Amino acid sequence: MEPFEKSASAIKKLCDRTVWPDGVSPIIPDVTGVDPFWPAGFVLSGINSGIKPVRKDLMLLLSEAPASTASVFTTNLCCAAPVELSKANLAASSGVMRAVICNSGNANAATGAKGLIDARQMAADTAASWGLKPEEVLVASTGVIGQLLPVAKISESMPALEAASGSDQWRDAAEAIMTTDTFPKAFGVDIALSGGSARIAGFAKGSGMICPNMATMLAFLATDVSIEPLLLQELLGAANAVSFNAITVDGDTSTNDMAAIMASGRGPKVLRGSDDAILFGEALSSVMTILAQLIVIDGEGATKFVEIRLNGAASDDEARMAAMTVANSPLVKTAIHGQDANWGRIIAAVGRSGASFVQEELSVFFDSEPILKPGLDAGFSEEEAKKIMSKDAFTITVTLGNGPGKAVVWTCDLSKRYIEINGSYRS
Amino acid sequence: MEPFEKSASAIKKLCDRTVWPDGVSPIIPDVTGVDPFWPAGFVLSGINSGIKPVRKDLMLLLSEAPASTASVFTTNLCCAAPVELSKANLAASSGVMRAVICNSGNANAATGAKGLIDARQMAADTAASWGLKPEEVLVASTGVIGQLLPVAKISESMPALEAASGSDQWRDAAEAIMTTDTFPKAFGVDIALSGGSARIAGFAKGSGMICPNMATMLAFLATDVSIEPLLLQELLGAANAVSFNAITVDGDTSTNDMAAIMASGRGPKVLRGSDDAILFGEALSSVMTILAQLIVIDGEGATKFVEIRLNGAASDDEARMAAMTVANSPLVKTAIHGQDANWGRIIAAVGRSGASFVQEELSVFFDSEPILKPGLDAGFSEEEAKKIMSKDAFTITVTLGNGPGKAVVWTCDLSKRYIEINGSYRS
Repeated sequence: MEPFEKSASAIKKLCDRTVWPDGVSPIIPDVTGVDPFWPAGFVLSGINSGIKPVRKDLMLLLSEAPASTASVFTTNLCCAAPVELSKANLAASSGVMRAVICNSGNANAATGAKGLIDARQMAADTAASWGLKPEEVLVASTGVIGQLLPVAKISESMPALEAASGSDQWRDAAEAIMTTDTFPKAFGVDIALSGGSARIAGFAKGSGMICPNMATMLAFLATDVSIEPLLLQELLGAANAVSFNAITVDGDTSTNDMAAIMASGRGPKVLRGSDDAILFGEALSSVMTILAQLIVIDGEGATKFVEIRLNGAASDDEARMAAMTVANSPLVKTAIHGQDANWGRIIAAVGRSGASFVQEELSVFFDSEPILKPGLDAGFSEEEAKKIMSKDAFTITVTLGNGPGKAVVWTCDLSKRYIEINGSYRS
Repeated sequence: MEPFEKSASAIKKLCDRTVWPDGVSPIIPDVTGVDPFWPAGFVLSGINSGIKPVRKDLMLLLSEAPASTASVFTTNLCCAAPVELSKANLAASSGVMRAVICNSGNANAATGAKGLIDARQMAADTAASWGLKPEEVLVASTGVIGQLLPVAKISESMPALEAASGSDQWRDAAEAIMTTDTFPKAFGVDIALSGGSARIAGFAKGSGMICPNMATMLAFLATDVSIEPLLLQELLGAANAVSFNAITVDGDTSTNDMAAIMASGRGPKVLRGSDDAILFGEALSSVMTILAQLIVIDGEGATKFVEIRLNGAASDDEARMAAMTVANSPLVKTAIHGQDANWGRIIAAVGRSGASFVQEELSVFFDSEPILKPGLDAGFSEEEAKKIMSKDAFTITVTLGNGPGKAVVWTCDLSKRYIEINGSYRS
C-alpha cells in the first residue's frame, strides 16, 4: 500500500471507533488532492533542502494574515533550541503569529548556544522571505539529537520553499516533517458553528514518543475560525491533555515535542463562554485525538492498537496514573503482542501505579468481554479473549470500584521490531 | 556451564567490581558443598512437592531456636495472600520467629479469601511439623498469578521436607524457590565483629522484577549474630534501599516480592548504636547487593549488566528518580543492547525524570571515558565507546552539576529474548 493509502485506511478504521460530537464531521483527506482540504487563509509548502539525501525535510505553514496562534511544548528539561525559541516568540508576539517553519533530519537538540543561533536563523530567514517579523515565526526541528543543524542548507532553500508553496500543499508539508514514520498523518473536521461552517485540519509526525535518532512528536494544525489567542491556547491545552498526552509508545518523552495551531480568522467567530467555544474545543480534541492515535498505530514495531479505559478511580489523576502504568508496562505490552490474556500483569501494573483501590473490587474487560470480575473471579473464556486479542485494535477496560475518576489512553504492543529499530546504530 | 557454576562465575565477576568494607570478606559458596556455608543454628530443605512436574518447588528455612526476624514486602496494592499473612505473622510474633516456608510454581496471588486460607494452611502445616506456633512462620509463594494453590500437595509433602532437611542444604533450598531463573543465587560474607567472627548468607530468586507467569523476586537470608528484631528490621530496610530496591529489569514491581532475614543468635552480639551495628549493616548491604545484581544478570533476555551512577543531583531522591528513569528507559536499554553510544537517549531520559538541572551542566561517562562533557560537548571517541559497550558489564555515570545528591542502580539491556519470554502464553 502507498503511504497515503495506508494513512487513509488507518484513519477510516479510527473514525469508525470514534463517537463524533453533534455538529462535527470527520474529513478523511482526499489522497488524490482533488478536493481542497486545508482551512482557508494559509499557504503550505514541503521540499527537500538537503538535510536528508532525497526525502522532503523542510516544511512551511504560513497564515496570509496575522493569526491567533497557540502551542504546547515538551516538558523535557533537555528541550531543544527550537522549543526554547518558539516559547519565547509565542510570548513576544502575544500569540499573534504568521508562520511555522520546521525541518526534519536534525533535532537541533543538545546543541547549546550554537543551536539557538541556528534556530533564530531559521526564523529570520522565514521572516525575510515573507516580509514578517522574526518573532512571528514558530520554529520546530526533528531528527538526530546532538548534531549541529546544517542551517545554511535551510537558508539557501527559502526561494525553493516559496516556489513550491500553495494553499493546498498539505501533502508535501505532512511528508516533510516525517522521520521514522511509515505514513503521513493528516486529518480534519468540519464544524457547524452558529456563525457558519468552519474547519480544523492538521498533520502530525511521530513513531516513538521519542526516538532521539529521529526525535520528536510534532503536530501542526490550522483553522479558519476567528478566535482570541488566549482562548485558543486554553482549548489547545485541554485538547492536548486528552489526545497527544494520552498516548504512549514507550513512555519516553522527547526533547522536541510540540503541537501548534494557527487560526486565520477567515471563518466564523468563536467567542469565550459560547456554545461555539465548547463545540470548537470538542472538534479540536477530535482532530488531535485521531492524529495522536495515528502516531500509536505507526508506533515503532507496533502491530496492535490498544485503548486503555480506566474507570472507577478516586480521581481523574489517579485514573490517568493507573492507565499510563498499564499502557507503559513492558509485561502488559509483550502479553498484548503475544495475544496472551494475562490479566495478572494488568492488575499488577495497576497495583504499583499509585492509584488507590481494593483488589477484590477490580474488574477487567477486553472489549465487552469480562476477564476479571469483582472478587478476583477470572472465570473467563480463553477462546473469547484470544479472539479479541487477535484483532488489530481492541479495548482493555479496568474498573477500580473506588470513585468517579476516569481516563482513556492509547498504546501499542512491544515487539521484536521495536528492539531492532532502536538497537541499531545511530547512522 | 552447570547452573551452580554459572552462578559462581557471575558472583566472582561481581565480587571483583565490589569495594568491600574493612572487616567484611565475601564467601563464594562452594558448589561441591564440602565447606559449610550457611550460618550456624539453622536447618534448610528443598524438595519437589508436585506443584511443578519435576523441579524442586518447596523450601524450608528453620531456626533451631527463636530467631530475631525482619522482612520487607512488596508495595504493590495487589499483594499476594502469603504477603498479607507474613506481614500479620511478623507483627503478631513481635519479630521473633522460627521458620520461612516458600513454594514456587504458584504465586497464590489474586486468589481472594481462599488464597489466604491456603497461605494459613502452609503456616499451620509447617508449625505442626516442627512444633512451632503458626505465627512464628513466614510464608512466601512465587509462580503463576490468579490460580488457586494446590495446597494439599504442600501439606502432604511435610514429612519429605523434614526428611530432606539439614544444616547445609542451602543448595536444595536455593533451587526450590527458582522460577524462570537460569541459575541459583546464593552468596554470603564473613564479618569481623568486636565479639568475634559472624556470617550472613542468603539466596534469592528473580528474573523479571515481575513475571506474573512466574512471579516475584524473593530473598531469604540468615545470620548467626544476636540482634534485637527492631534493629534487624531497620538494618534490613536500609540495606534493601540500596540493593533490591536499586535494581530494575523492566520496571514492573511484583505482587509477591519479599526479602526476609533470621538471626539465630549463636554468634556475637550486635548492639544498637555500636560500631558492630554499622559494620553488620554494611555487610548485610553487601550480601543483598550481590544477590540483587545476580537477579539483574539473570534478567529475562539480559545480555549486559549496567551500573547507572547518578551524581550531582539536588538530593538523593532526585538522583534516584533520574537513575531509575535512565535504567527503565526502553530506548536506553535497546541502545545498550545494540552497543550504540546514543547519549541523547540518556540525557533525554534524565530530562523527563523530574530531577532538576541545567542541560549545559550535564556530563556522561561510560566507565572512565567521557562521552558528554559540560557545555553539551560530545567530542568522544566512537571507537572507545563501542569498546566499553561491547563488554558484559560497564558503568554509565551521569553528573547533573546541581548538588550533592547521588544514587546507584543496576539494570540490564532489553533484547528480543525478553519479548519472546514474555510474549508467550501463560501455560
